[in-house]
Amino acid sequence: MRILTADHLVTMNAAREVVADAAVAVEGSTIIEVGPRSEVVARHPDAVIDDLGAAVLMPGLVNAHHHSGMLRGTAESLPVWEWLRLHIDPMHRVLTADDAEASAWLCYAEGILSGTTTVVDMWRFMSGPARAASELGNRLVSVNYTGAHPDYDYFDSLDDNERMLRDWAGAAGGRITPWVGLESPFYADDQGLARAIAMARDYDTGLYTHLSESSLEVEEFDRRYGRRPIFALESIGWFEAPRTMFAHAVWLDRAEIGFLGGRPTGISHNPVSNMKLASGMAPVADYLAAGIAVGLGTDGEKENNNLDMFEELKTASLLGKLRTMDASAMDSWDVLEMATIGGATALGQDATLGSLEPGKQADLIAVRSDTPRMTPLIGSGPYANIHHNLVHAVQGSDVAMTMVAGQVIARDGVLANADLAALIARVRSLVPDLFARRAAWLDSVGDPAGLFPA
Amino acid sequence: MRILTADHLVTMNAAREVVADAAVAVEGSTIIEVGPRSEVVARHPDAVIDDLGAAVLMPGLVNAHHHSGMLRGTAESLPVWEWLRLHIDPMHRVLTADDAEASAWLCYAEGILSGTTTVVDMWRFMSGPARAASELGNRLVSVNYTGAHPDYDYFDSLDDNERMLRDWAGAAGGRITPWVGLESPFYADDQGLARAIAMARDYDTGLYTHLSESSLEVEEFDRRYGRRPIFALESIGWFEAPRTMFAHAVWLDRAEIGFLGGRPTGISHNPVSNMKLASGMAPVADYLAAGIAVGLGTDGEKENNNLDMFEELKTASLLGKLRTMDASAMDSWDVLEMATIGGATALGQDATLGSLEPGKQADLIAVRSDTPRMTPLIGSGPYANIHHNLVHAVQGSDVAMTMVAGQVIARDGVLANADLAALIARVRSLVPDLFARRAAWLDSVGDPAGLFPA
Repeated sequence: MRILTADHLVTMNAAREVVADAAVAVEGSTIIEVGPRSEVVARHPDAVIDDLGAAVLMPGLVNAHHHSGMLRGTAESLPVWEWLRLHIDPMHRVLTADDAEASAWLCYAEGILSGTTTVVDMWRFMSGPARAASELGNRLVSVNYTGAHPDYDYFDSLDDNERMLRDWAGAAGGRITPWVGLESPFYADDQGLARAIAMARDYDTGLYTHLSESSLEVEEFDRRYGRRPIFALESIGWFEAPRTMFAHAVWLDRAEIGFLGGRPTGISHNPVSNMKLASGMAPVADYLAAGIAVGLGTDGEKENNNLDMFEELKTASLLGKLRTMDASAMDSWDVLEMATIGGATALGQDATLGSLEPGKQADLIAVRSDTPRMTPLIGSGPYANIHHNLVHAVQGSDVAMTMVAGQVIARDGVLANADLAALIARVRSLVPDLFARRAAWLDSVGDPAGLFPA
Repeated sequence: MRILTADHLVTMNAAREVVADAAVAVEGSTIIEVGPRSEVVARHPDAVIDDLGAAVLMPGLVNAHHHSGMLRGTAESLPVWEWLRLHIDPMHRVLTADDAEASAWLCYAEGILSGTTTVVDMWRFMSGPARAASELGNRLVSVNYTGAHPDYDYFDSLDDNERMLRDWAGAAGGRITPWVGLESPFYADDQGLARAIAMARDYDTGLYTHLSESSLEVEEFDRRYGRRPIFALESIGWFEAPRTMFAHAVWLDRAEIGFLGGRPTGISHNPVSNMKLASGMAPVADYLAAGIAVGLGTDGEKENNNLDMFEELKTASLLGKLRTMDASAMDSWDVLEMATIGGATALGQDATLGSLEPGKQADLIAVRSDTPRMTPLIGSGPYANIHHNLVHAVQGSDVAMTMVAGQVIARDGVLANADLAALIARVRSLVPDLFARRAAWLDSVGDPAGLFPA
């Protein structure tokens, strides 16, 4: 048994308990006990003590929407459609399994170092990324970037996705959870949509897609189905999947929100991406009020352009206040819940993840508190600011330790299971070729205007 | 002579030149030469070489609006007026010169470590903060938090402000520049307003205040003067000051923007604060188009709640895109200019600060590029992303070195001229007393509702 101790511990349990001078006892991959240091230590006199000192222990963060990649900063300042057509989709046409795996190694590493313990990665050639997570030590919900339509045959296929479900379910001691993914419902034909839904049912897993990111999509659903997106999906049997999750969901209306409340459906709110791509301001407070499980996501390095969930926490708070022009909107505890227990609930993993409670998996992080950003730090009483500091002041670089399933996978900026410099060098060596292949493909198509629908 | 070398250098000159494998030669406090490493080194064979390695050299950041303080996270989620009345103004009533100086030491340290070389600090008992900047090594534009009205006599007075102008102008080798400050034009009576303007004129310095942060202020100006805020100030002779600067300026209309264009008036845009306090979205692109000098500011630890200008760069970009629902709005170079040459211009110091050019002061920072956040990093060509990475990916913790006036004042997270842990400990020791004195004052007033105007 191992006991981690620190100045403060934020449980993220239902009572939002904060423990000062705290300890968490871990046996194997599991949390045995959480409480005041003196009590926990006294009850387990033989345990190894690992004192994190001036730090806040809290649950590891769940990044509920992410794409690995290596285009950071190279496709900017474009409306979404041009951006997809000129940069992103052509990248997908020329991406190799090697590119995909190398990107995943580096992106997961960036996440781990800034406190992400579980990442939902919609990405390509997913066995490579699953290998990366398996070795780096993080949890992965793998979501193939699938196209199931003749026009989108350069994405992963549903066959690829099914292979992931067969080969990787429960792998790495349960750290890998494959879901069924679709880039967008529009990237599948009727047959593809039906197969994706059936596959989620057959393998008893989740079905994940982008939805209602831009208002244009809502119009396109109306054109195709004569309904709002959620009801269009209902009409094709989408919600027969055991669990569903939507990334973005910026533009849900009241009826759609009412429909989703209480269902096994999660939403990933991605405020940085929604601002950067000018997608809009999701009515997150309404989702929470309706009982929808909401997680937080960074989106990809090409949309964000970093993978720091602490930045996402802050932006979620700021955007929630701006949206309603109310400084008291988006309570800091609600925001913290989205990044922890909310994301876990959206993924159907709240029984094991998302809070520091006995019986749950030991996925936790230590956030340094010996910093200007954490001064002052008050855990309780009328001036308690620990939750506000975690949301608004802390950055991912303040994470001093990341543990998943009882294993320390990063400490003091150093990965336990990989050499960060080598991961960076690998991506840097692959980028020029990827760009050259993409440029060649774009040349072969001729006029880029031809890439846009008439 | 000393030559700093690094993989990349971003000049922020008018041509927005980026130099790969670059060097900057510094003699005393002044930049002598900027260019390719091989050329600069060859021309100065006797210089000491300081190789920053995998890093981007760029101008130090100008934080154009800031309040030192030590209330971080303890006064949250309130509408601005309640927040001022219940937390902030009562704090000002009981603040001591010791509190003010200790806060300034820690806030300037936080800024220095995250790349701020010049800070505009509207704060109290300003000789202490000036001493802090003088010793820590940063530049300070000191702006007294002045009340010049019987109802606001617990702020600094115009006498205090005049003492700063007399005692500190040009101190610390020119690193300290006192301005005349008013908390708000409403915190001064007619006589106070006239004296503040005259003082700026007499001492040939700038006049700084908060303006049009919330739309309520615009209404109040209309009630008092029957004019929009800028024209109300014009009517009382405000612009007879040699230079003026407004923090926030969220709600300027077209006529006000037209009036300010080309004048020696700067604006500090503070997007995190404006979102967090739900103040609104400033039309920054319109300000830039009108030729107004716009800087970026973090606002205080109580509004933000950290002092990382890189976070401010990102938020400025995101908010600019959201405001116009246009992903191509707020060009990354424009955003970088606000944090460097824009802020310097707003302060009337662009002849010496804000870009890396021969003859300017050697105020510069090195941003690590051996990180996931800087991968890939492309300095030029069609996929150049160095400016996008600096705005959207980098965080203050990536700053490896901060130099002001040719002196290295921080390196690898360590201050050259102070012990960070001691600065933190000092603030932590003062906070409980400050809160106790504030609580006692609030008790003495009785019903807090009585603090609000009927």
